[in-house]
Amino acid sequence: MVDWPVASVSNPLGSSSILLVCEHASHFIPPEYSGLSMAEQDLVSPAAWDPGALMVARRLSFKLDAVLIEATVSRLIYDCNRPPESSDAIRAQSELYEIPGNANISAEEHLSRVRTVHDPFHAAVDDALTKHIKNNGESSILISIHSFMPVYFGKHREAELGFLHGEGSTLAKAACDIATDEGRYRCRMNEPYSSADGVLYLIDRHGSTRGVPSLMLEISNALIASPVQAAQMGDYLASLLSRVPNDAEYVSAQ
Amino acid sequence: MVDWPVASVSNPLGSSSILLVCEHASHFIPPEYSGLSMAEQDLVSPAAWDPGALMVARRLSFKLDAVLIEATVSRLIYDCNRPPESSDAIRAQSELYEIPGNANISAEEHLSRVRTVHDPFHAAVDDALTKHIKNNGESSILISIHSFMPVYFGKHREAELGFLHGEGSTLAKAACDIATDEGRYRCRMNEPYSSADGVLYLIDRHGSTRGVPSLMLEISNALIASPVQAAQMGDYLASLLSRVPNDAEYVSAQ
Repeated sequence: MVDWPVASVSNPLGSSSILLVCEHASHFIPPEYSGLSMAEQDLVSPAAWDPGALMVARRLSFKLDAVLIEATVSRLIYDCNRPPESSDAIRAQSELYEIPGNANISAEEHLSRVRTVHDPFHAAVDDALTKHIKNNGESSILISIHSFMPVYFGKHREAELGFLHGEGSTLAKAACDIATDEGRYRCRMNEPYSSADGVLYLIDRHGSTRGVPSLMLEISNALIASPVQAAQMGDYLASLLSRVPNDAEYVSAQ
Repeated sequence: MVDWPVASVSNPLGSSSILLVCEHASHFIPPEYSGLSMAEQDLVSPAAWDPGALMVARRLSFKLDAVLIEATVSRLIYDCNRPPESSDAIRAQSELYEIPGNANISAEEHLSRVRTVHDPFHAAVDDALTKHIKNNGESSILISIHSFMPVYFGKHREAELGFLHGEGSTLAKAACDIATDEGRYRCRMNEPYSSADGVLYLIDRHGSTRGVPSLMLEISNALIASPVQAAQMGDYLASLLSRVPNDAEYVSAQ
């Protein structure tokens, strides 16, 4: 059971038609879990959070004047981008990292984490999006910000920026096309993950079901290792998103 | 100029009649300020933030189911518990810590920090309190959470828990009396600071002006150095506050 708040809203008065979410913002493991018996250095590894993603998301939140919802508990306790029934929601192994405290947990503990992390986090997103749609109507857009390991299971990943989508591809394609033309980063659609990997839970649950155009941005964490780099990436993405036509055509094109 | 969000709201759907604020929650110095040219170790010192305060505030937020507004930028950039005209709002020296990047800043830079930190932070508090009063009416209570150095300028401070108040003292006295009777900590009214030190800006600006009973809690940072200790203190304060009569008598007693 997690006796801590699990969601925080940055820039709560933001006026942008874009609503940002960062599910893997935090590596905080409640002290009650004793670091899930992990090795000290693994507690701040990409297994625990998406390094750099929160900094990028906050900078983007400022530049776009967008509301940003952040998770405030590590994905190792419960991965808020996975549904309760997913075997990846609470992992005992993540890439090369072992998470002993998650091995063989009881159904009761699983359910308690669903109730104390998944449920209130998604209630906060749902509430924020409801208010957002009330203010922005059909122009509301949902974007989640993630970072990924440039080398995964020893294999180098080609993408630097990934544009992932669920039901509607118009927004992701438009952003990826502009970024690709610009040539600053190696851009790919649905890399290094796609819907086949079950990573679209957040945007599917909140965006697709409401007909809100949605996009999941994946950034190589090598590009955002320092606050300066994260700020630069935030500035770049703010500029990119401001050049993507922001109107109802995404809704109808869904 | 601070190109980052400066306020974040944890547990945004909290139902408690208490609204929590943590002005010194963060030691984040935007990379644009190059650490204000401070020594590396000073950037996470009590000059930069109130160590442990955010952990206590978040635990308290969970236990009370209270909305919590956190500053997300270091007090060294701008101290959100000080008015723009205060000489303590942007310090070039804090206790024994030197802040070279704040020495001799221009009036323009001062104003820019007021506009990009002070103003949006207080707008976020104002908005949250307005919504809170709308939901709770006369039972709304404002509490800010701080930590202090047990040794200051070489002098040992006697207090472990300080209960500070502005115009109305009823709430602070009631909480201090219960905690004193209990005997777990050395409790003091208006220590280690009081209104004479100009530290009540937040509760005066938002609480007293609206007739909302307010309290500033100061906790010795030696008691909340680890997450486990901070959680225990949060639990203690949640229990304490739940035993303080929470009704309109505070309003009338103001």
